[in-house]
Amino acid sequence: MADSTLPHRPKPEQAPEAAAAATEDGAAAPSKNALKKAAKEKAKAEKAAARAAQEQAQKAIQAVDTAVGLYGKLPDTEDIVPTVHFSQLGEEHYEKEVTVIARVDNTRSQSAKLGFLMLRQQGKKLQTVIAAPPEGPVSRQMIKWTTSLNINSIVQVTGIAKKPAVPIASAHLSELELQIKKIYMIAESMETIPMQVKDAERPPPLGDIVEGEPQVDGEGVPIVSLKTRLDNRVIDLQTETNQAITWISSGVAQLFTEYMLKSGSRWIFTSKLNGSSTEGGSEVFEVKYFKRNAYLAQSPQLHKQICIAGDMGSVFEVGPVFRAEESNTHRHLTEFTGLDFEKTFEHHYHEVLEFAEEMLVFILTQLQERYQKEIAVIQKSYPKAGDFKLPKNGKALRLNYMDGVALLKEAGVDTSEQERFENDFTTAMEKQLGQIIREKYDTDFYVLDKFPMAVRPFYTKADPKDPTFSNSYDFFMRGEEIMSGAQRINEAKELEESMSAKGLDPTAEGFQDYLNAFRQGCPPHAGGGLGLNRIVMFFLGLPNIRLATLFPRDPQRLKP
Amino acid sequence: MADSTLPHRPKPEQAPEAAAAATEDGAAAPSKNALKKAAKEKAKAEKAAARAAQEQAQKAIQAVDTAVGLYGKLPDTEDIVPTVHFSQLGEEHYEKEVTVIARVDNTRSQSAKLGFLMLRQQGKKLQTVIAAPPEGPVSRQMIKWTTSLNINSIVQVTGIAKKPAVPIASAHLSELELQIKKIYMIAESMETIPMQVKDAERPPPLGDIVEGEPQVDGEGVPIVSLKTRLDNRVIDLQTETNQAITWISSGVAQLFTEYMLKSGSRWIFTSKLNGSSTEGGSEVFEVKYFKRNAYLAQSPQLHKQICIAGDMGSVFEVGPVFRAEESNTHRHLTEFTGLDFEKTFEHHYHEVLEFAEEMLVFILTQLQERYQKEIAVIQKSYPKAGDFKLPKNGKALRLNYMDGVALLKEAGVDTSEQERFENDFTTAMEKQLGQIIREKYDTDFYVLDKFPMAVRPFYTKADPKDPTFSNSYDFFMRGEEIMSGAQRINEAKELEESMSAKGLDPTAEGFQDYLNAFRQGCPPHAGGGLGLNRIVMFFLGLPNIRLATLFPRDPQRLKP
Repeated sequence: MADSTLPHRPKPEQAPEAAAAATEDGAAAPSKNALKKAAKEKAKAEKAAARAAQEQAQKAIQAVDTAVGLYGKLPDTEDIVPTVHFSQLGEEHYEKEVTVIARVDNTRSQSAKLGFLMLRQQGKKLQTVIAAPPEGPVSRQMIKWTTSLNINSIVQVTGIAKKPAVPIASAHLSELELQIKKIYMIAESMETIPMQVKDAERPPPLGDIVEGEPQVDGEGVPIVSLKTRLDNRVIDLQTETNQAITWISSGVAQLFTEYMLKSGSRWIFTSKLNGSSTEGGSEVFEVKYFKRNAYLAQSPQLHKQICIAGDMGSVFEVGPVFRAEESNTHRHLTEFTGLDFEKTFEHHYHEVLEFAEEMLVFILTQLQERYQKEIAVIQKSYPKAGDFKLPKNGKALRLNYMDGVALLKEAGVDTSEQERFENDFTTAMEKQLGQIIREKYDTDFYVLDKFPMAVRPFYTKADPKDPTFSNSYDFFMRGEEIMSGAQRINEAKELEESMSAKGLDPTAEGFQDYLNAFRQGCPPHAGGGLGLNRIVMFFLGLPNIRLATLFPRDPQRLKP
Repeated sequence: MADSTLPHRPKPEQAPEAAAAATEDGAAAPSKNALKKAAKEKAKAEKAAARAAQEQAQKAIQAVDTAVGLYGKLPDTEDIVPTVHFSQLGEEHYEKEVTVIARVDNTRSQSAKLGFLMLRQQGKKLQTVIAAPPEGPVSRQMIKWTTSLNINSIVQVTGIAKKPAVPIASAHLSELELQIKKIYMIAESMETIPMQVKDAERPPPLGDIVEGEPQVDGEGVPIVSLKTRLDNRVIDLQTETNQAITWISSGVAQLFTEYMLKSGSRWIFTSKLNGSSTEGGSEVFEVKYFKRNAYLAQSPQLHKQICIAGDMGSVFEVGPVFRAEESNTHRHLTEFTGLDFEKTFEHHYHEVLEFAEEMLVFILTQLQERYQKEIAVIQKSYPKAGDFKLPKNGKALRLNYMDGVALLKEAGVDTSEQERFENDFTTAMEKQLGQIIREKYDTDFYVLDKFPMAVRPFYTKADPKDPTFSNSYDFFMRGEEIMSGAQRINEAKELEESMSAKGLDPTAEGFQDYLNAFRQGCPPHAGGGLGLNRIVMFFLGLPNIRLATLFPRDPQRLKP
């Protein structure tokens, strides 16, 4: 019935009956030649009739459909068919029957007897072929059904693995294709999907953060905006690139946890709903908590420190951190995943700083080792930043803050505000310093130690030898901050003095709660807070933190 | 100067000079005997004078203090003294000098020359002795300073490890004590602390959830209320019991993560701030989000499912879950740590159910293996529940919901509401069922499968063979629920029908966001959500979930 919709089908020849009728209507008596011609045409007509009969018979056979039960709805059977993951398929499967479950990436109907179906599984593609040999059982109906599948539907396909004559360039599995024997629907997609996975595979337009509209590139191919991609995250996550990015993100959490547990640290879970805002900032979300207000934790700072005062020695947390900042930049979110740690030390806060440096070197080195394939995939879409450069000797490069100032000054940057301790580096200065350090020391990861006390929070310990500076440090990747940390003041009296020096009122309720944690003896300690999403972003050189976040939240976005 | 304050010092003898003067003032001439006596007394007086002079000299020496620099403020030196953790101390240290950093648990002054100092490190105690031999250098001043230390202060102690004559029953390290050579202040505690660690070591009064006041036990010893303990969490965490509980809590998260990663699952981090409440419940916290409202996630349900629709295959999360329920029970919190997972399956949701059963058996078995010591410590305070009974064959016991109904009915419980599918089990029924199952099957961990559709949320998949029931399951420990899970409906149309059947409006904005996730083809999947705090609570048999939570949050508590 639908054959006419197929491309490249030859038009039916003129009906032989029409030619025969023309002679009967003619006036002139037939010549010998004409008779001969008529006999010839009769034979031809008979032949055509026979052929038509044969075609009709074949059509009747086809109407019966030799492939019933081999396609369509999944049969309701208790027999379990073992399936193979794309990543497991190899030459050992040639000429063997295998079953896979995957999405329809694309379909193409070559003829009524031949179709192609590209399958996709976690971003990787495998080509399948469906052909109807005269002897069946694959039928034209089955081919039609297969090549008419809605893009993105999930199907179960059983077929014979074959080595293709030439490698299939458009598939990830270029050396293996499947000849379809059975195909069943697992989950059908809507007829129209809001965007194509292949378009989402390409990076969003530069500078497109939130409000970008669909654009086309130089060749007229649509570039899907970041907004459209995030709005349609289900499709967006199916891209090969996002499959890889979400693995890297998982890997950062795994490696952080691995390192912390191996060091004897305890995994903690601190409350995100708190009765007061402990860090004195205004950038805190307010929550309706029964008949009063609660506040979402901006960091687990106080709770980590209570654990230290409570003799837990070394603790870490992996959890959400909330910032009510109305920043619409490439690297700010209102909610992100914090990797926090806090640890006692015995003699010097550099014990903790070294511990943290080793942790970062461990995470970054192991990412490069364990996720080579994923990094290669991501670099196809985001090649600009290049490989992340780790320090060659396996040790973090540590400079003092003032060394950073000197390097910038040397490069002609106006650092007068920094020299007067009025301001921390601007983002632009940090990026430039990252460039300078990369050129000079050949590393994308480094640490600045000894920040001026004036630019750090009240709970930071001043350097006992020069209280203009503090025992505090920031970690940088590609010139952007991924961690801030410090030795903390561990005595209530010193804390009160530091609050007052910063113009804060120690008698405020939130501060009293904080101070109480230090009145019963708290050992010296230091720690820090890392942003998981920033590590992913800068390690991979992604242009926007939203690309490194599963469900990003910013002042405009609370969905999906 | 302070000698007079020391106990047991003999009163000074009458001065010998007074006796000699009496003779000079006398009228009678001395007899031979009297002269002899006088000579004797003179000699005695001279002896006494010599002794007094000697004592004065000694006092002068003592005033100099032979121990200066050996106690008090930590010397400002670059020399690093390696320290030993209590857990590392053993017989190999006998007669050797070791340095430890620990809290003052208790002090006792035996005499001016002898004192005792009990040290505490992460809940474990070590006895130290300080004695002043005549030859120094430990002085009476040093002993006085040591035995006057504020309880809970943190000190650094250097001493010689000795085998005590008899084992020290009151210390955890009963076979080793330290003879103090040096002692320095690391962090001083306030003179009065709000409660004693030793009192917090004892379980809070039964039934005391939030509002309990301090009580005394049968012997007049104070029982600190749970409220006081939680208000003073810094001290409370220092108990041996809490040190162990926080390790078990860390262990549950570690084992869950270990199992999930080993199975090839991806670690995800989903947003807690969302634009709408997806599960249709009213028990959701509202957040002021710039110029509009956001809602705190009651579970990562929708986001886990978006990941599945996004081809991530198997995902898990460890993170906070928020419930705006005004429940003041022993097992409800407004914020707890969720261990969530979601996973595709190929043939039957029991693939995922088996996966989850194996996960729980793995976690519980490994807890018993890796945390024997911690469990033993906790059982000293909470012995009632006894060891957690795991299924002997290493496989979870799985019953159908209706089997549970039958067991209860058999035991004489009125299950008519459950038989009519009007209600799920009550908490009391669950506990009783736990008892029955423990007696019958000798296990504290079991699974109920196939709950009636009527008592499960709209996104639960009905059993295709009998839609009265559903492909859903709960996990129980000691008769209390620790996990709820199910196969989820994976098609938008079926979801809409299920919403309508439950009296929900599929066109509501929150539901449309949810439905959109299933319009582009979503594979069949199932999952579940575990409560970390409940696993800790029921594994250890703690009477209150607040005892299994680092910083518990309930309708009354938002601190510390």
